[in-house]
Amino acid sequence: MTNATRTKTALSELGEFGLIRRLTENIVLKNESTIKGVGDDCAVLDFKNKKIVVTTDLLTEGIHFNLMYVPLRHLGYKAVTVNLSDVYAMNATPKQITVSIAVSAKMSVEALDDLYSGIYLACERYNVDLVGGDTTSSLTGLTISVTAIGEADEEDLVYRNGAKNTDLLCVTGDLGGAYMGLQLLERENEVFKVNPQMTPQFAGYDYILERQLKPEARKDIPPLFKELGIRPTSMIDISDGLSSEILHLCTESEVGCRLYEDRLLYDNQTKKMADELNINPLVAALNGGEDYELLFTLPVTDHDKIRNHPDISVIGHITDKSEGVNLITAGVGQAIPLQAQGWNPLKN
Amino acid sequence: MTNATRTKTALSELGEFGLIRRLTENIVLKNESTIKGVGDDCAVLDFKNKKIVVTTDLLTEGIHFNLMYVPLRHLGYKAVTVNLSDVYAMNATPKQITVSIAVSAKMSVEALDDLYSGIYLACERYNVDLVGGDTTSSLTGLTISVTAIGEADEEDLVYRNGAKNTDLLCVTGDLGGAYMGLQLLERENEVFKVNPQMTPQFAGYDYILERQLKPEARKDIPPLFKELGIRPTSMIDISDGLSSEILHLCTESEVGCRLYEDRLLYDNQTKKMADELNINPLVAALNGGEDYELLFTLPVTDHDKIRNHPDISVIGHITDKSEGVNLITAGVGQAIPLQAQGWNPLKN
Repeated sequence: MTNATRTKTALSELGEFGLIRRLTENIVLKNESTIKGVGDDCAVLDFKNKKIVVTTDLLTEGIHFNLMYVPLRHLGYKAVTVNLSDVYAMNATPKQITVSIAVSAKMSVEALDDLYSGIYLACERYNVDLVGGDTTSSLTGLTISVTAIGEADEEDLVYRNGAKNTDLLCVTGDLGGAYMGLQLLERENEVFKVNPQMTPQFAGYDYILERQLKPEARKDIPPLFKELGIRPTSMIDISDGLSSEILHLCTESEVGCRLYEDRLLYDNQTKKMADELNINPLVAALNGGEDYELLFTLPVTDHDKIRNHPDISVIGHITDKSEGVNLITAGVGQAIPLQAQGWNPLKN
Repeated sequence: MTNATRTKTALSELGEFGLIRRLTENIVLKNESTIKGVGDDCAVLDFKNKKIVVTTDLLTEGIHFNLMYVPLRHLGYKAVTVNLSDVYAMNATPKQITVSIAVSAKMSVEALDDLYSGIYLACERYNVDLVGGDTTSSLTGLTISVTAIGEADEEDLVYRNGAKNTDLLCVTGDLGGAYMGLQLLERENEVFKVNPQMTPQFAGYDYILERQLKPEARKDIPPLFKELGIRPTSMIDISDGLSSEILHLCTESEVGCRLYEDRLLYDNQTKKMADELNINPLVAALNGGEDYELLFTLPVTDHDKIRNHPDISVIGHITDKSEGVNLITAGVGQAIPLQAQGWNPLKN
């Protein structure tokens, strides 16, 4: 990707339709619900008697990603998985995506090939069809808009608003890794800007780098729920940080919550990088965001079904609304009201 | 809207969730197929046994619109209607949209209110529900991404690929108006840049200005087809110019076509502005784009059903593929191969 001798073709050589053809000609549709994909005024879908879920995200250069250190292939992959994460957060299965891009005319066709290779890799791994989109130019940076469509049986759908007093608050995986990966990338980028001869110091941090650059969505979790015979009472994915997501669940469900600091799980690389940069990993988990894990609540009677499951941690429990939403600190057990200090794209 | 004393609230005062609340709190869902709108990880839809159509567009400042002369309210309206036009072009009925925006932090909350007032006006008029989206910032201009979702019975769907030899080539409404409206707006904008004291000369051009700034989608046409007892063999909406769309239909259907110059319909304002600017209205129709009329083909046996209908013109007929796609000029009747010279967003 950084091979300087690689051919670079100007977008204007292909034009819009030539570019669309190049980027979409190898699509093989995988899902029965996809009747017609790219190539007409609309895609045509058929979900029979299933419910349909729809989600969309818009990523802009300089706000959501820095092309100085984000490879386009990873960016394409991530643009898809962050949307699929929202579909899994409904306990649904993603089936189709549309992808629209606005690109600077200076971008090469080969750069877009890289971006789409990541998009298609995600489509392959998550078994979704790319069924449409729009390809246009921008006067400045790259913008990517992805819409994901999924299906679920009505009885499987999980909303944000079903958490009940005494429910367990659970989370998949470990937290804070994506944020620490970002800190590492930004540190090395600063070093590079000062001295381009310096080799970036990434050794031993592959996991947190991947959490940031090429996150996966938890497609394993909806089938795991079936396998364990559980159905969350509420669920949300962690894109803006644990604090913000817990507050969403509690607001929508009109409940309070106790989150226990000592129940939060960090990967060793997250802890090591946090140490190196003198950041409390708790801050990364609460406010860092982009972990794309699933946060959900379960009736306390389901505790035995998930106890000691390696993919699920119980990190707190739901309370009456009047008790508020609190972090219970490790050791002293002080209750501190949680505040949404997650990433705010409108505050630059 | 140009009242300088109007309050301007910084976006950062509201933050992302505050802004989303402000922009979406008055939504009243209108469609039975909308189970859950804004406010969860995904919207939830239910189309029962209908087929679903999906389309999406991405509009970027400086490429698709110039905020020097495009009012935000109109821009919001147009961002919706251009997507609905794609749904009608499938002979389907739009039901839901998602709207994502990336805005410069310098933009005021009130400016976004204007944008969304246009979006909601379109939702109202076309009976669609806004069910989701994303609100984020951009380092530069405004970007708007709209996805529209619609429904149709399988037997009503019309694709681009069904045109048959001898079919009539038909179009709704008149052509070239949006392009001439754009020329007028750009001319007056140039005048304004030289001398801000000059009053823009828009009198008598309300129709072509509206065609450009606030186009409607032809929601009347699918029910009209039912009423007339016809079903097009192929259909597409005219967004890039008649040439480009005819070539799409013919390529997808593997047919040729004869388009008759003297059958094309222009509004008087289109003709007058074309005269004033010394542009052939044919060029505006073929290559101007943004008319958002519907281009379709019908079996010749349906001719009596549409003859003299004020909303439909027969502008040519389908031929064998070997005859190519030709414009038959008025008067001499010369056949000139059509070329797609429509708007190419990747050629700046």
